[in-house]
Amino acid sequence: MKQCFKIDEWLVIEEGFNPNENRVAESICSLGNGHMGQRANFEETYSGDSLQGSYLAGVYYPDKTRVGWWKNGYPEYFAKVLNSTNWIGINIEINGETLDLAKAEVKDFKRILNMKEAYLERSFTAVLANGNEVKVNAKRFLSSVYKEVGAIKYSITPVNFSGELKITPYLDGDIMNEDSNYDEKFWDEVKISASKDISSLVMKTKKLDFHICSAMKFNIVNNGAGISAEIETNVKEKYVSNIVTVNAAQGEEIVIYKYAANVTSRDYEKEELEQKAVEILSKAYETGFDKLFEAHKKAWEVKWKESDIVIEGDAEAQQGIRFNIFQLNQTYTGEDERLNIGPKGFTGEKYGGSTYWDTEAYCIPFYLSTSEEKVARNLLVYRYKQLEKAKENARKLGFKKGALYPMVTMNGEECHNEWEITFEEIHRNGAIAYAIYNYVNYTGDKAYLGQYGFEVLAEISRFWEERVHFAPRKGKYVMHGVTGPNEYENNVNNNWYTNRMAAWTLEYTLEVIDYLKANEPESYKKLEAKLQINAEETAKWRDIVDNMFYPVDEELGIFLQQEGYMDKEQILVSELAPADRPLNQKWSWDRILRSCFIKQADVLQGLYFLEDKFDEATIRRNFNFYEPRTVHESSLSPCVHAILASKLGMQDKAYEMYLRTSRLDLDNYNNDTEDGCHTTSMAGTWMSVVQGFGGMRVRDGKLHFNPFIPGHWTSFSFKVMFRDALLKVTAAKESIVISNESYKDLTLVVNGKEYTAKANSQLTINN
Amino acid sequence: MKQCFKIDEWLVIEEGFNPNENRVAESICSLGNGHMGQRANFEETYSGDSLQGSYLAGVYYPDKTRVGWWKNGYPEYFAKVLNSTNWIGINIEINGETLDLAKAEVKDFKRILNMKEAYLERSFTAVLANGNEVKVNAKRFLSSVYKEVGAIKYSITPVNFSGELKITPYLDGDIMNEDSNYDEKFWDEVKISASKDISSLVMKTKKLDFHICSAMKFNIVNNGAGISAEIETNVKEKYVSNIVTVNAAQGEEIVIYKYAANVTSRDYEKEELEQKAVEILSKAYETGFDKLFEAHKKAWEVKWKESDIVIEGDAEAQQGIRFNIFQLNQTYTGEDERLNIGPKGFTGEKYGGSTYWDTEAYCIPFYLSTSEEKVARNLLVYRYKQLEKAKENARKLGFKKGALYPMVTMNGEECHNEWEITFEEIHRNGAIAYAIYNYVNYTGDKAYLGQYGFEVLAEISRFWEERVHFAPRKGKYVMHGVTGPNEYENNVNNNWYTNRMAAWTLEYTLEVIDYLKANEPESYKKLEAKLQINAEETAKWRDIVDNMFYPVDEELGIFLQQEGYMDKEQILVSELAPADRPLNQKWSWDRILRSCFIKQADVLQGLYFLEDKFDEATIRRNFNFYEPRTVHESSLSPCVHAILASKLGMQDKAYEMYLRTSRLDLDNYNNDTEDGCHTTSMAGTWMSVVQGFGGMRVRDGKLHFNPFIPGHWTSFSFKVMFRDALLKVTAAKESIVISNESYKDLTLVVNGKEYTAKANSQLTINN
Repeated sequence: MKQCFKIDEWLVIEEGFNPNENRVAESICSLGNGHMGQRANFEETYSGDSLQGSYLAGVYYPDKTRVGWWKNGYPEYFAKVLNSTNWIGINIEINGETLDLAKAEVKDFKRILNMKEAYLERSFTAVLANGNEVKVNAKRFLSSVYKEVGAIKYSITPVNFSGELKITPYLDGDIMNEDSNYDEKFWDEVKISASKDISSLVMKTKKLDFHICSAMKFNIVNNGAGISAEIETNVKEKYVSNIVTVNAAQGEEIVIYKYAANVTSRDYEKEELEQKAVEILSKAYETGFDKLFEAHKKAWEVKWKESDIVIEGDAEAQQGIRFNIFQLNQTYTGEDERLNIGPKGFTGEKYGGSTYWDTEAYCIPFYLSTSEEKVARNLLVYRYKQLEKAKENARKLGFKKGALYPMVTMNGEECHNEWEITFEEIHRNGAIAYAIYNYVNYTGDKAYLGQYGFEVLAEISRFWEERVHFAPRKGKYVMHGVTGPNEYENNVNNNWYTNRMAAWTLEYTLEVIDYLKANEPESYKKLEAKLQINAEETAKWRDIVDNMFYPVDEELGIFLQQEGYMDKEQILVSELAPADRPLNQKWSWDRILRSCFIKQADVLQGLYFLEDKFDEATIRRNFNFYEPRTVHESSLSPCVHAILASKLGMQDKAYEMYLRTSRLDLDNYNNDTEDGCHTTSMAGTWMSVVQGFGGMRVRDGKLHFNPFIPGHWTSFSFKVMFRDALLKVTAAKESIVISNESYKDLTLVVNGKEYTAKANSQLTINN
Repeated sequence: MKQCFKIDEWLVIEEGFNPNENRVAESICSLGNGHMGQRANFEETYSGDSLQGSYLAGVYYPDKTRVGWWKNGYPEYFAKVLNSTNWIGINIEINGETLDLAKAEVKDFKRILNMKEAYLERSFTAVLANGNEVKVNAKRFLSSVYKEVGAIKYSITPVNFSGELKITPYLDGDIMNEDSNYDEKFWDEVKISASKDISSLVMKTKKLDFHICSAMKFNIVNNGAGISAEIETNVKEKYVSNIVTVNAAQGEEIVIYKYAANVTSRDYEKEELEQKAVEILSKAYETGFDKLFEAHKKAWEVKWKESDIVIEGDAEAQQGIRFNIFQLNQTYTGEDERLNIGPKGFTGEKYGGSTYWDTEAYCIPFYLSTSEEKVARNLLVYRYKQLEKAKENARKLGFKKGALYPMVTMNGEECHNEWEITFEEIHRNGAIAYAIYNYVNYTGDKAYLGQYGFEVLAEISRFWEERVHFAPRKGKYVMHGVTGPNEYENNVNNNWYTNRMAAWTLEYTLEVIDYLKANEPESYKKLEAKLQINAEETAKWRDIVDNMFYPVDEELGIFLQQEGYMDKEQILVSELAPADRPLNQKWSWDRILRSCFIKQADVLQGLYFLEDKFDEATIRRNFNFYEPRTVHESSLSPCVHAILASKLGMQDKAYEMYLRTSRLDLDNYNNDTEDGCHTTSMAGTWMSVVQGFGGMRVRDGKLHFNPFIPGHWTSFSFKVMFRDALLKVTAAKESIVISNESYKDLTLVVNGKEYTAKANSQLTINN
């Protein structure tokens, strides 16, 4: 663990230039606004190590599958998050020498991510080889009001000289993905418009025909007054720039304002892209940097009002949790139901795809509690819209009916190519079903079931029906050849979690049928006809629910992760030599697979989802058995353990688990933040606080809290939106204070006792 | 199934030119002599589809591993069989037009592989676009006496014109492997020597620094008299040629004799390669085509004398079995203990590697019975020499001791990269141990144990010791996470075959210790000290032997392929729709894995190896259970079923199984012969006849036979070498005739009764 950043409650501060950690800082200080994202690359030339990254949500590339050995059923491509036109670039030449921090002497370097106001600021003094010393301050943001707009304020002051500055703002479309499977470039040039006013670049992807247009406009201010210097234009393949040469006087600040608009054919007709970009850009330019920023800042005030967590007494934890909330809010805003939450958000391009089961298992709870209902709803509708593709996916694998959602996808098609995951981690179907339950349970929006939810549930149920089979020797339904959430086991039989979630899906689907029949008979009749559901089918589902096989160990009174788990050599994580950790770097895959060690919550994930179906003693026995065997080498694991430990009163364990995720990226725990942040796991950190330490649950339409103060915190508070109410829950040693910041009274349960939090009032419950 | 070739007992005849099947014919009609191999490509220019292939045994390339997703423990490279310098090429230009069968009108095309004398002959008449008609006859062989020498006699006769022939014999080193992982070329040029007499080309591999040199010399004869025309030389990158222009008269045959020598740095110093090639080539040239061929033919007479199988009453079967024996004898001669038998021999480059467990499980029995002892012995010593690498391989995967031989290798290092195979098909270790037993049992050469065998057995035993673990719930040793010979199951627990062969290895190793202690006490003491074997270790081995877990189904009285097999949906192959076959082309991998269908003999493979440890009823129950569930989608499967069916008196089943392998390539059953022949499985076909129909076994140092006549054969005979005796066993309806063609009496057992086959005599046993 390296502490690369200074602790501050609202800022992430990199102090001093560390080229070796540049990629990490570029990831951490990424900006995003749901529509686009930008790594914290430098505006000026940088010849050192960097992962230049500009991303546009939903614009991707189907990169031809690369495997060692083909397996029938593999997809043709892997959807890559596309690195696209570099619109931030401003080259600076000082008396003929390029400003390049890899070549200059760098002093007083600071890179600051301001999370409160969502902007990036960078300042430094550089001494060039020619002896010229300049002070630079660069500030930029991606507007959260005008989603296609990015703005940069780049100030440069000659410290020890007067001389010539050559300033070259540019757009560069000649961009590669580092992880291209066959070292191919994915972009073709469509059109370049170069002018002294607005220049633009229309690019298109070699496959799928996504078109994008970036347009830029700039002005230069010297000592508060605009400069009217000669502007040249320069056009190369996939590249356009303006060149301005100005005379800079020692001590006088030259400020370059660069505005860019980035539009895509996802939102506009291809033919009108350039015109749209110019319109949007012109408006932004007229508005000006400061006013654009004011509006942006206000929008973030609202986001923080709805989603902030405040921790008193632990600045490190405060920074950690805010960083997570910040990145989640930067990644997905819920405005576009065609989008989802990629595992690295807009902070890198590794892994590709945009949608994993992370969304349903970890992100939905976050957005449910911190955004309007439509945000989580849109994430569900996203899957509904991909139902036909999920059915095709099941057909492709040989299933006669039902839907298997993909492990990794961009447009609904599977794009992962590792048989033990692609074909076997089918538990994702369970999480997608569970998210529907979770949404309805949280919001009370039962209308969703008839409108969208039931169809998804029914097709997933059909998949489970066909995926299990009856094993006469056991007299039970079994499920063979799966990989559970614990990916350190592959191709196992009767993974408890998968079996349990399959049966749960069938049961919930039957409940929903009963609900629809009783409450929306007309709507159900239509669905029944559309889906051709009959009594034989639902009877089969009931039979599976009643006769599913669950591996258990009677002696220990626990559920078995899979059949035969107890035949494994039983060693505890505490018995492992430190040199063996992390297993995924130190051990061969063979050894990992055969060991009893668990990568991430598996049985415990199921107990978390279905908590109310199990008594506390059962949960405790399983927790006590599995937690010491879990290495948490997935960033998605500790949150579930933190929540269960909290429930079981194991406060120290809960806090220990929380610490493993909350600063995962800030402290680069897994030594891979250079590739981008672990965006989806950040929702898990939020869950640890709210569902773990806060003990928040929704039961029978009511919010429950059961908080405790972990570690050396003095208090913590979090915001929760629930059915039109906005609560601020503050847990301190002496009391729990619930501020209802809305116009709606809310009945809720704290530590098992019911209270009413009156509208616009504060409810204090003394401990 | 396509019958591309005419049936003939000694020839494989392609009649009529079929460009679409050209690659298949190129594979089938390949030539090889243990040192080098050559696909049946054309000498003259051919612009149609062709896999040009020249291979030199033991010269390979470590091609950087390509995977979709890396797993710890994967090797850095995959060893590719190297396609190397094209030495057969002779371009022909006729009155300015290149002879190219893809562009000419082709008449009377014949490509004939003469298996008896091991040469390739091709004849055709071609009408060129310019109207010139020529008759061509091309004959070539790779000398089985002078292993580096290839010779070509290329005759061309103008049919309807007199005119100018431009003849260009060349060496071309600018060769690629079609399956290069990253489209790289593997060869660099070292030196080209061009002269009118001998031209040569020294090439080296970009990695590993293998050097090879090909040298060529030619002469041209017109109407029986040498032609002394002007010879030009032409040198390009990686290429050298001579060019001769001759005047050809209508009806007069021009004959080009081209001789080549191909030497490698495996046999000579790099610096002397050119000189060696020139020496060898000069000698061959002096000897001349006809005498070289005579010597070659004689060597093949001996090979056939030792290994032929004669089938009366079924020419198709006769051709099939001879083709298999022929290809095996072309591939491996046992003279070079650094070599092994690649899955495609010298007939193609796909898959790469040279050594699979095929060698021990299928090829050793063939070479044991059809070659001098040293041939099989060298195959064993090959593994002995790679023992250190096998120990490194085990260390790499995390084992503290013991040796794990690689799944695929060229030099002893693992080069396969599919975790479920590379890390899990560890049963290969069992086959390697078994081959030692098999060799000693067959030859009686117990000295091999102390010299080489024991060390290998001990290190494999150590691997098994560490690979199993004690499962307290079962009170037995178990083995988790393996893939058995049936690759349609991956990562299973307690594969019966693997467990059984592991225990067998330990038991046999303990037996060998007892033998060595009693018979070679000095030698054993040294081995004990070298290997640091102690009583604790051997006691542990004994404990594992005594307490190994074997999955069984009590109800059916069968061994279970793996734990949980009976929980699978039980369907028989006969119930599968034809449209579903072959499964590996029609079903997703997911479906294949979860089905009960077996790719190749697994439990039955074990019963075959350890036949004498099981009563016939047990073998029958298992056969009757597994055979209907086996799809035989590995070419290595049917032979084992054929042998067991023969033993069980199920003659029709045995014959059915035999038919599935005997003409696999000739009839291109699997539709992939264009990539090369299935060389190693050919040994299985031989086993079907000799061990299956012939019922040959070796028990207590004696040969046993128990023959029956399958199908509509009238009789069949095979040759067997056994402990200095050479037998010809002829099974006919009325009698079994055993001719002892050696100077040694031999006691043997036929149909359970002991006989003595007197030296140089014939023993007739009436049925």
